[in-house]
Amino acid sequence: MIEIGDYYEEKISFPKESIIKFAEVSGDFNPIHVSDHYAQLSMFGRPIVHGMLAASVFSKILGTEFPGEGTVYLAQNLKFIAPVYPDTDYYARVEVIEINRDKHNAVFTTTLEDAEKHQCILGTAKIKNINCI
Amino acid sequence: MIEIGDYYEEKISFPKESIIKFAEVSGDFNPIHVSDHYAQLSMFGRPIVHGMLAASVFSKILGTEFPGEGTVYLAQNLKFIAPVYPDTDYYARVEVIEINRDKHNAVFTTTLEDAEKHQCILGTAKIKNINCI
Repeated sequence: MIEIGDYYEEKISFPKESIIKFAEVSGDFNPIHVSDHYAQLSMFGRPIVHGMLAASVFSKILGTEFPGEGTVYLAQNLKFIAPVYPDTDYYARVEVIEINRDKHNAVFTTTLEDAEKHQCILGTAKIKNINCI
Repeated sequence: MIEIGDYYEEKISFPKESIIKFAEVSGDFNPIHVSDHYAQLSMFGRPIVHGMLAASVFSKILGTEFPGEGTVYLAQNLKFIAPVYPDTDYYARVEVIEINRDKHNAVFTTTLEDAEKHQCILGTAKIKNINCI
């Protein structure tokens, strides 16, 4: 059973190939993600990772690692605070902040930080999991 | 320039191959999405599309179609109300509900409905786009 304050953290990076693959699977070929030339002329100076690709790490953690098997996603709120760059180390963290045992629901904070502890993505996720909540 | 009430809608489906590809790119191999056997025994009865894959249609629309070029994602809130199934027709819609011209920001409702107009995903997105806001 998970408890309030329990957390899980992992290091992650988003290779350039993942960006292309995510563009193909989502249809999101926004040039800020896939065009070196376009991105160089933007405020970011180079391509950035799709926000929804970067945020998918929370889905991966919640669905396969912590709490893992049995997880069904109910909600995800995301603020994209700073750009996420390809081939760079980030730290994804989820932490339990609310539990409703009757409904087998829990709310987690979901954060992605860079190696200098600057927050890039902040949010919360709500899941259902009858195995461990 | 976009105005409050402007909207964009498109038909979309999520082929089984997209689910596998999304699992590979995100690392989210939650069996509810990728295992026929596991999903058959679940409350859904068959595999469901990853919430973040389904929600990626909003990123695609906002970044490449409406308002399109120049869009930078600031926030996305998502409620996963009903399961999204592979190889099934859905309708994604984004509609402008707030505009801040000084900051070039706008808020959109983002909804995914099935062919019977049942809501599957509900939420809001906030973007910046200096070209058209």
